[in-house]
Amino acid sequence: MQGDQLSCSHTSAHAVRRLPRFDVTLMEHYLDDLRPLKEEVYELFKQHPELLVKEEEGLSKEEHRELVRRCLHVILDAGYSPLSFLTKDQAKYFYLSELLALVDLSLTIKLGVQYSLWGGSVVNLGTERHRRAYFDDIDRFRLPGCFAMTELKHGSNVAGLQTEAVLDVHKDEWVVHTPDDGAIKWWIGNAAEDGRAATVFARLKVPAPDGSGALDDHGVHAFVVPLRDSSGNTLPGVEIHDCGYKVGLNGIDNGAIQFTHVRIPRENLLDRFATVDRSGRYSSPITSAARRFAATLGELTGGRVGLTAASVGVLKGALTIAVRYSAQRQQFGPPDGPEVAVLDYPSQQAKLMPMLATCYALMFAKNRLVQKYCEMKRTKDEALVADVHSLSAGLKAYTTTYVNTAIGVCRESCGGHGYASVNRLGALRSDHDIFQTFEGDNTVLLQQVAALLLKEYRDSFRGSPLMATWSYLKIWAQDSLPANPLVTHETDPSHLRDPSFLVRALRYRTARLLHTLAARLRKHSRRLGDFGAWNKCLMHVLALSRAHVECVMLEEALGAAERCVDPDCRRSLKALADLFALDRIHSDIIFRNDDYIAPEKAKAIQRLIEALCSELRGVAVPLVDSFAIPDHILRAPIGLSTTAVDPYGSYLEAAGFDG
Amino acid sequence: MQGDQLSCSHTSAHAVRRLPRFDVTLMEHYLDDLRPLKEEVYELFKQHPELLVKEEEGLSKEEHRELVRRCLHVILDAGYSPLSFLTKDQAKYFYLSELLALVDLSLTIKLGVQYSLWGGSVVNLGTERHRRAYFDDIDRFRLPGCFAMTELKHGSNVAGLQTEAVLDVHKDEWVVHTPDDGAIKWWIGNAAEDGRAATVFARLKVPAPDGSGALDDHGVHAFVVPLRDSSGNTLPGVEIHDCGYKVGLNGIDNGAIQFTHVRIPRENLLDRFATVDRSGRYSSPITSAARRFAATLGELTGGRVGLTAASVGVLKGALTIAVRYSAQRQQFGPPDGPEVAVLDYPSQQAKLMPMLATCYALMFAKNRLVQKYCEMKRTKDEALVADVHSLSAGLKAYTTTYVNTAIGVCRESCGGHGYASVNRLGALRSDHDIFQTFEGDNTVLLQQVAALLLKEYRDSFRGSPLMATWSYLKIWAQDSLPANPLVTHETDPSHLRDPSFLVRALRYRTARLLHTLAARLRKHSRRLGDFGAWNKCLMHVLALSRAHVECVMLEEALGAAERCVDPDCRRSLKALADLFALDRIHSDIIFRNDDYIAPEKAKAIQRLIEALCSELRGVAVPLVDSFAIPDHILRAPIGLSTTAVDPYGSYLEAAGFDG
Repeated sequence: MQGDQLSCSHTSAHAVRRLPRFDVTLMEHYLDDLRPLKEEVYELFKQHPELLVKEEEGLSKEEHRELVRRCLHVILDAGYSPLSFLTKDQAKYFYLSELLALVDLSLTIKLGVQYSLWGGSVVNLGTERHRRAYFDDIDRFRLPGCFAMTELKHGSNVAGLQTEAVLDVHKDEWVVHTPDDGAIKWWIGNAAEDGRAATVFARLKVPAPDGSGALDDHGVHAFVVPLRDSSGNTLPGVEIHDCGYKVGLNGIDNGAIQFTHVRIPRENLLDRFATVDRSGRYSSPITSAARRFAATLGELTGGRVGLTAASVGVLKGALTIAVRYSAQRQQFGPPDGPEVAVLDYPSQQAKLMPMLATCYALMFAKNRLVQKYCEMKRTKDEALVADVHSLSAGLKAYTTTYVNTAIGVCRESCGGHGYASVNRLGALRSDHDIFQTFEGDNTVLLQQVAALLLKEYRDSFRGSPLMATWSYLKIWAQDSLPANPLVTHETDPSHLRDPSFLVRALRYRTARLLHTLAARLRKHSRRLGDFGAWNKCLMHVLALSRAHVECVMLEEALGAAERCVDPDCRRSLKALADLFALDRIHSDIIFRNDDYIAPEKAKAIQRLIEALCSELRGVAVPLVDSFAIPDHILRAPIGLSTTAVDPYGSYLEAAGFDG
Repeated sequence: MQGDQLSCSHTSAHAVRRLPRFDVTLMEHYLDDLRPLKEEVYELFKQHPELLVKEEEGLSKEEHRELVRRCLHVILDAGYSPLSFLTKDQAKYFYLSELLALVDLSLTIKLGVQYSLWGGSVVNLGTERHRRAYFDDIDRFRLPGCFAMTELKHGSNVAGLQTEAVLDVHKDEWVVHTPDDGAIKWWIGNAAEDGRAATVFARLKVPAPDGSGALDDHGVHAFVVPLRDSSGNTLPGVEIHDCGYKVGLNGIDNGAIQFTHVRIPRENLLDRFATVDRSGRYSSPITSAARRFAATLGELTGGRVGLTAASVGVLKGALTIAVRYSAQRQQFGPPDGPEVAVLDYPSQQAKLMPMLATCYALMFAKNRLVQKYCEMKRTKDEALVADVHSLSAGLKAYTTTYVNTAIGVCRESCGGHGYASVNRLGALRSDHDIFQTFEGDNTVLLQQVAALLLKEYRDSFRGSPLMATWSYLKIWAQDSLPANPLVTHETDPSHLRDPSFLVRALRYRTARLLHTLAARLRKHSRRLGDFGAWNKCLMHVLALSRAHVECVMLEEALGAAERCVDPDCRRSLKALADLFALDRIHSDIIFRNDDYIAPEKAKAIQRLIEALCSELRGVAVPLVDSFAIPDHILRAPIGLSTTAVDPYGSYLEAAGFDG
């Protein structure tokens, strides 16, 4: 490409060379070991182009919902069993989430609502009896269902939900009721049109054993509540309204549900963690109410893994569009010279290359999470539960916040043409936006990560064995010593790209934030109590969790580079991992404030970042080609694999000009 | 509010006190001296609620365009003359842009297309003859028109446009022609449905005076080209297609126009800066072709002022929604205590308070820009032209990039309810998104700002008088001396909030970036040439421009605080300005790398930022109430002025429940 000369020829001072072109097929195979499933699924939609949303057509929500339903049936009719994936082959379920994100993000979420949330709650919170009764009907979408947790006034604070399920011992029934408007179930997917039943989260109340007639409130539990009859009419006592148009995901029929004394059989309590007998006696194998509640919520971790996978899928698509477009779009140039590709401008590289590096790191970290999740499900190893909880919460929060911003930058990188609906960046952003909020608000999830890190940190002082994976305490002991002035001032690129420097720097930051957070919480809690102290340190808490996630990402990215046997692919993977780490080190003032890096080292890092951006620009197109998103799935005319050959051909046709 | 205690009681260590409640009416009046116009215009829409887009209804683009047309006629029928505002009372024109942004951003842009772009180009690039012929018809929207500059392959690089206007001397006509698909006029507002004529930017070509029959290309000029007859049919040689759905602004009928040898009279050249006589001789009062082209583009500055005003208007609306919602939405709380308003959490404050501070600073900087623009138009003072060009480019770029991110943060701050279309944050973001790109891509505009700063800097060495306003050279001479170690280490809040520290710090940064940029460009241009050197330093260039804009913002924000006579209002304004400056100082590593502030000072600044966020939280609601956006204009149920009283009432009604 003509601009290469501009961007690559002046970086010799930083020992950055041009990256070798690698074999895209080799890279694609290295990145993706479930490719046959992808090819099968995407082939289905090649046969049904009429089901893919054409962003340029301005669908109504009803039309969009109908398309999504038909897409789901195409998958089911091809013989896939999403609920079996979810229970037996989770890696495939998460892979499907990621794949379908670029078919239609509403389809991914429809799948999530029906299988991960509705199906998952029945299977994981219920017992064998529930599984027998519902599994096949849920799997085949003969029994579309909802996950009715969130209420109008209660979202993140699940323990504060107000919907009630009161046992009527005489009739052996629960009476499910919405006590006030604030407790109306809100945003419930599948509710507005399709849902025939729902897992409803409600406060379980039974008569107190003392016979006083008072009710004992055992807190929030899950119940299966029928919503509609076979003709689709709502059942008595159930009032449902459509939540209306949303910023995105309008292929999902979200609704609001109000229950007025709805009666359901006692057996409809999903009773894996707690049960109520014929006499109304409540019992649970888990004695602590807090731990019981945590076990219930813990079963929902899978949803976050699926969202992380889908979010990474969206980022891959957005980057494919932005990088391909930027590589062929030309604008300005030297006096009397031809125009230059916009990707040759350092400003465009600074936008897109760190994003490409982050995308790869997220992809590898997500793979690790999926692997751990499957291992946890297979081995039922208790020790893995906290690890998976922490990683799924942290990675879901980090990924979805990052991708939300990234899609916007991709749109802007594509200039005016990025604003055409047909090029999909707007819809991807609008559809993805809510990923930051649902299945755990990101700010809340990050706090859970920090809480787990702190617990482990404190346990270590009480003599518990440290979890091998994240022994920040050891790192702190090693690296919190007065920094070695030689290292602090070392600016040679070979040092700056040395994995041991990069990993140690990110670990140092996490260890340091953890250590000081523990001390600050101790200090403040004396005066403010635990809740006050936590809030006092909240920004510190969030910084710790993000730092931790970036540690995981870097280690996975470096590990993936190291394990890659093809030397050309490996060099690109290593450059991406280095850019990711250096970008984070450079942008966090903590390293300077602690004098972990001297000013001249900070400046050397800045120069190296610019050089790496320029170096990666040379392989940016193959790096997105390696995501191997077929044109009929990507659809955006400015981002197709043929764009380099005929940049505007399909775009002109889309607008109505002769091609 | 119950959470006040949490957020305000533990900050004594940093000498931050609770801010006094101020009188909202006093603040409103201080902020806004054109209030009667606002009240009149908003009253019109109170009479026509049916014209306001209901985001929850999923309008087609055709329906939306029709609403926008009707809104425009409401304004015209009420006797307003937008084109007279634009030519005689620009402050009112820009104020209208801002006001209408919250009615419907498509309406602001429709106004911009018809008056600022189409009308403005006729009035400012044409001569008296054109003004006489078109003024009234444009003003009354009897002659809807377009501004046909951008082409499919040519956007930012206006000089590279390919559409041609070749003079046919025999017939005394221009032949306007699209030479290839890449030159099709693209994204042209008013083109798809309404446009009857257009200002077309095309390469002016006349027969060479040597009689050889060759054509002289005089570069890009503006021509009035009729597009449709009075029945709305396109004229011969004009092919127009609808650009289709866009990410937002679907109330604007953007189209793509292809010209095939379209003939127009010679007089249709807009000939203020250059003319062609009956014999085909080209002449211009400006001898340099580059300066002539600059003069042409310079007349378009007003568009950027209008966009800046509208963008600030959008930010006010988004913040009003997010702050009011966050002040009443409760979630979690201390053990056995009531839930706490989410705005009491430092994480929520960290999202919203710096944004509120930035919004105020942008508002004051925008006022200054409007004032300078009007002065330039009134006095025709040449010295003001470069100043206004620089400030309008810089502020448009800074504001629209900032607001784009900010709306997303507001959406996320409102959790799931922020995702309901009815609450408008999605549409505001989607509509506003393209502000970053049109009327000058932000990355390109920032480069113009830097180029002007550099020019002034270099001129100063050649003995030209410095423009008084931005004499960074003097600052550099004063503050680039080895920093006074006492000041570098000073951490007392009274020092950190001293305007002289804040202003000097931001000026130091700009001066330092300017000085080092000039040196680097000198060095690199020897080997790389000017174009190569500029690109080599591009990230430095962009940092300089942003630093400059932030200087302007801070000086205006501090000035506005100082001039405010009411002491309670003044204290809030001062706290906002301080937070804005400290936030920027803290987040830019340059201050640490230059040892302009010592590590302990950086940490003291971080603590002070958290304390100011907590302090401002106490007046956050009055600070958005002071924007005085009436409920019937804001419309978002979760953000109404009544939200504090009945948080979810109108929201429940919107979903279909009994109120």
